[in-house]
Amino acid sequence: MGTIFLYEIAGTAMLLLLGGGVVANNILARTKGYGGGWLMINVGWGLGVFAGVYVAYQSGAHLNPAVTLGLLANGSDMFPGNAEAGLAAIPGTLPNVLVYLLAQLIGAFIGAILVWLAYKNHFDVEEDPGKILGVFSTGPEIRNYGWNFVTEVIATFVLVLVIIMFGATPSGLGPLAAALLVVSIGASLGGPTGYAINPARDLGPRLAHAVLPIPHKGSSDWGYSWVPIVGPIIGGILAGLVAKILA
Amino acid sequence: MGTIFLYEIAGTAMLLLLGGGVVANNILARTKGYGGGWLMINVGWGLGVFAGVYVAYQSGAHLNPAVTLGLLANGSDMFPGNAEAGLAAIPGTLPNVLVYLLAQLIGAFIGAILVWLAYKNHFDVEEDPGKILGVFSTGPEIRNYGWNFVTEVIATFVLVLVIIMFGATPSGLGPLAAALLVVSIGASLGGPTGYAINPARDLGPRLAHAVLPIPHKGSSDWGYSWVPIVGPIIGGILAGLVAKILA
Amino acid sequence: MGTIFLYEIAGTAMLLLLGGGVVANNILARTKGYGGGWLMINVGWGLGVFAGVYVAYQSGAHLNPAVTLGLLANGSDMFPGNAEAGLAAIPGTLPNVLVYLLAQLIGAFIGAILVWLAYKNHFDVEEDPGKILGVFSTGPEIRNYGWNFVTEVIATFVLVLVIIMFGATPSGLGPLAAALLVVSIGASLGGPTGYAINPARDLGPRLAHAVLPIPHKGSSDWGYSWVPIVGPIIGGILAGLVAKILA
Amino acid sequence: MGTIFLYEIAGTAMLLLLGGGVVANNILARTKGYGGGWLMINVGWGLGVFAGVYVAYQSGAHLNPAVTLGLLANGSDMFPGNAEAGLAAIPGTLPNVLVYLLAQLIGAFIGAILVWLAYKNHFDVEEDPGKILGVFSTGPEIRNYGWNFVTEVIATFVLVLVIIMFGATPSGLGPLAAALLVVSIGASLGGPTGYAINPARDLGPRLAHAVLPIPHKGSSDWGYSWVPIVGPIIGGILAGLVAKILA
Repeated sequence: MGTIFLYEIAGTAMLLLLGGGVVANNILARTKGYGGGWLMINVGWGLGVFAGVYVAYQSGAHLNPAVTLGLLANGSDMFPGNAEAGLAAIPGTLPNVLVYLLAQLIGAFIGAILVWLAYKNHFDVEEDPGKILGVFSTGPEIRNYGWNFVTEVIATFVLVLVIIMFGATPSGLGPLAAALLVVSIGASLGGPTGYAINPARDLGPRLAHAVLPIPHKGSSDWGYSWVPIVGPIIGGILAGLVAKILA
Repeated sequence: MGTIFLYEIAGTAMLLLLGGGVVANNILARTKGYGGGWLMINVGWGLGVFAGVYVAYQSGAHLNPAVTLGLLANGSDMFPGNAEAGLAAIPGTLPNVLVYLLAQLIGAFIGAILVWLAYKNHFDVEEDPGKILGVFSTGPEIRNYGWNFVTEVIATFVLVLVIIMFGATPSGLGPLAAALLVVSIGASLGGPTGYAINPARDLGPRLAHAVLPIPHKGSSDWGYSWVPIVGPIIGGILAGLVAKILA
Repeated sequence: MGTIFLYEIAGTAMLLLLGGGVVANNILARTKGYGGGWLMINVGWGLGVFAGVYVAYQSGAHLNPAVTLGLLANGSDMFPGNAEAGLAAIPGTLPNVLVYLLAQLIGAFIGAILVWLAYKNHFDVEEDPGKILGVFSTGPEIRNYGWNFVTEVIATFVLVLVIIMFGATPSGLGPLAAALLVVSIGASLGGPTGYAINPARDLGPRLAHAVLPIPHKGSSDWGYSWVPIVGPIIGGILAGLVAKILA
Repeated sequence: MGTIFLYEIAGTAMLLLLGGGVVANNILARTKGYGGGWLMINVGWGLGVFAGVYVAYQSGAHLNPAVTLGLLANGSDMFPGNAEAGLAAIPGTLPNVLVYLLAQLIGAFIGAILVWLAYKNHFDVEEDPGKILGVFSTGPEIRNYGWNFVTEVIATFVLVLVIIMFGATPSGLGPLAAALLVVSIGASLGGPTGYAINPARDLGPRLAHAVLPIPHKGSSDWGYSWVPIVGPIIGGILAGLVAKILA
């Protein structure tokens, strides 16, 4: 459980540092990447997963409660183990699952703090509260909780289903495959809600937004915050169940 | 045959969900990826193939009647099998081929419905019928059925020829190679007609467009619909025959 | 020698079809990819190499006289062979070398013709002769034969040196590594001259431009044509010699 | 030590030629890639690492004093060796470390000279001294030495930590993984300071800027130059220490 805790914190922090960072670089005032575009944001998050998976390899690198709960619904181990690397399998017991979820939330919070430190000068001069929140958490372009929820369910379903299929298919891409999948989901299904597809990725940074002393920050938009938590959880569990048939 | 049916439906639905989704994100009103550009569309379709191939690995992941008919013309099995994964080869019998084609059409139809659900808010506010159809099916920039047909033949010839060459060459990229090939064809040969290169990818969503209740949708442009069906079929069969010489 | 001739023609034609195609899609009137940008052009050429290398695997897939002559200067075989695939090595005899060069030129010519067919409608409506020639052959942004030559020498030196290093390094990326290298050279060193880095890639399409019946075509700019022939040859040979020390 | 010296010079020169080149292509007057955007710059530097790693494989391809010092802090060998390729391990002795650092600085200087040669015509017509310096060395968008330093520490920490994790994780991507990591850091953490993340990458070209005869060049901004030296060194050493716990 110490392994899970340490590596999931480190990996999720890495994911959020790089993922939040690419958003900051795109939308905060006076950055070098200002206006770099949606594909750059997708690539940034995808490669955030890439780096995060390497960092958290020993815990199976879920980095995402939807993945943890999807694997649980699937009946899989949390980590299949790797004999060559001397790593044991991690079973999906309740204490293990809770440690994953807690570590992911803590890691996401830490990652968001690191983004703030790396872009401190730019947060200080940014005057649009919407952009400041946008570096931390997702929000919909057209606010309609029902359909926003549907979008998050579908996008997370794709994420968790294909991740489980990776393990059922002979291929040696590993972390790169996960990265490309996240680029794909962002490019294709991120248009309406900004693809949380991960409750920790949204909640951890929203908590950081609430507590950090940023000059022009506004509301943390807690009214929307249940959508990127509940939607990904439902999508992940559905994927775990469907993958029982396919994988 | 149940394996073919199940996996080709699931894989083609995944392809269309991600492929249609990236177009929706680029062209529908008020999305986060609006105006993301042609390369983003190419990457989105390529990674749609990437995810779809993992989902449909057990059926050989054709996801495309042009691939099925190209392999048939080539004299190859529909799927070579994989001893390590305990999967048997699938021969190119007439019933098998028909199941592939039917499943691909059904899968593409389902995928298009899922795009509509994921982007429901944005379809509801979009007022340009051309953009609405553009999320579902291809259309030419300069309408000239003869030359549009030639473009689809050439682009599909490249697709099927190189896919068959993948199998004849020592390399371990698997689904990534197919994804990159589709990015390439989109970037290089998609300019005139939007690269259907797959009859099911165009016809299934066009049927979905015809039946879905979208506020400002217009014609489904059935007059053009034969080009992205017949062109890719001819291109795929030609590639299968030429690959007999090269592979 | 029949193997060399057949595969180098097919692979170089594939390279030019996809490479010329991405330029056509970016600059010809009324294409879907119009104005897609330099990185899209780099990706298109890189993936053209990717597809071309698979097609021409049995001849070693030089697709480029600078590679052929660089390997010759290096003292390497033209193709090391592959025991697993049952392919013999191809030594660098004079007749073999001449067959490579001839096949590359013919393949590049054929590829350019295919681009014209795929984009026929768009060539017909394009009224800028500079853009029409730009689909076929390279030209400098600032015309200065001496420094244009230096740029082509440096860029081709990088290409051939790193390709030879690929073979001297444990890594399993194969055609993808070549593709990424060409993306890199285009992005980093293509700014001044449009990175011919391949005499056949420039001369074959220039011949096609000279003979094809395109409404508003202008001069084929033969005055510049020696730069993208001689520069890459010198750069490739230098790389072959330097690689004797490093590889 | 001769191996280290030769390969680190060659690999770092390759990195700077391609990295400096992509910046030149994006910002100097009248290039083909002008205004290509931040993601293109990130891809260019990432692939510069890719090519540089192949060239310098025999020395372990640090190409960066922060990597050298991070490995030293980690207690790792400078290069683990490769029995298959007949290469011995390189221990982290003081003389070895000094040879790495010197070779990296020399290589970066040479690479910057090569960029100048490849883009000679464009340097000659460029009239903005800020752009000219920008091809060589990094500078902050908002000048605040303290926070600029923090950004460089964080970004380099990510670089060196994940590179060390690559070696501790079963995966076969090799140079591609390093390239993708550098794309990631540029996209996500390059916004404030332009991601030096490498003292040699910044200092070597700054020296070249100081001595080259470029018509409209201005100050070499030595006042800022300590930030991209000290920040990456601290970040790299911290990463090496943290990696002792994680790897």
